[in-house]
Amino acid sequence: MQQQISVITLGIEAIERSRDFYTRGFGWKPVFENDEIVFYQMNGFVLGTFLKTALETDMGRSGLMQPGAFSLAHNLAREEDVEPLMRQLANSGGRILRPADKPPHGGFRGYVADPDDHAWEIAWNPFWQIDASGHVTFGL
Amino acid sequence: MQQQISVITLGIEAIERSRDFYTRGFGWKPVFENDEIVFYQMNGFVLGTFLKTALETDMGRSGLMQPGAFSLAHNLAREEDVEPLMRQLANSGGRILRPADKPPHGGFRGYVADPDDHAWEIAWNPFWQIDASGHVTFGL
Repeated sequence: MQQQISVITLGIEAIERSRDFYTRGFGWKPVFENDEIVFYQMNGFVLGTFLKTALETDMGRSGLMQPGAFSLAHNLAREEDVEPLMRQLANSGGRILRPADKPPHGGFRGYVADPDDHAWEIAWNPFWQIDASGHVTFGL
Repeated sequence: MQQQISVITLGIEAIERSRDFYTRGFGWKPVFENDEIVFYQMNGFVLGTFLKTALETDMGRSGLMQPGAFSLAHNLAREEDVEPLMRQLANSGGRILRPADKPPHGGFRGYVADPDDHAWEIAWNPFWQIDASGHVTFGL
């Protein structure tokens, strides 16, 4: 069995507001978009931002809530890149949840909520490798 | 800016119950574990299952809710692999949310909740490529 996740899908309220955060805040480019979903090709998998009502229909249940009990992380190669990206995300429709500081396990990180209140950890972790394609390997 | 996610972290109530689902249900092996977190090395990034209270502390906010407005997907190479994996997940502490059927966009998929009510789509999608390392590429 592959240790594989093919898609992370985030439920959103409005396409444009979310798209602004990901394209202006992170600088990412969609690989596909229509009036209910935007897909981004990521490092070995796909990120989807999908109207929450459509996600509920696809999943066969309603009542999905925010903030959900999860977070996503984006790692940077240098400690000094963390705060500028957090500011850029906050200026693109995001909201700072926790200003960056040094966690007990090392490195430097803060949290930003996207416009739909999904949490992003923005981190520098010197123990985890990131290759040129963005593939990330766990390390201690 | 890399189109990169380094970690997906799921908030969980109990380490063993969640670990059973991922190790017995999916057959995945942890790369690291202690009494509050289990990490799995995935296809270009890391999956973490972290005690929800610890995630809330790290994030600097409380009140994270389930089910959250997101889903994760695991894609399989063959349509006939979808239902057996869904049954195996259900037999490892999961719960079927939507039995597998054919979505409008093609392929075959169903949804299973993990023991913490996080939704997993189990899918066969003939338009998306999966390489031998599990790296998934968007396709139409």
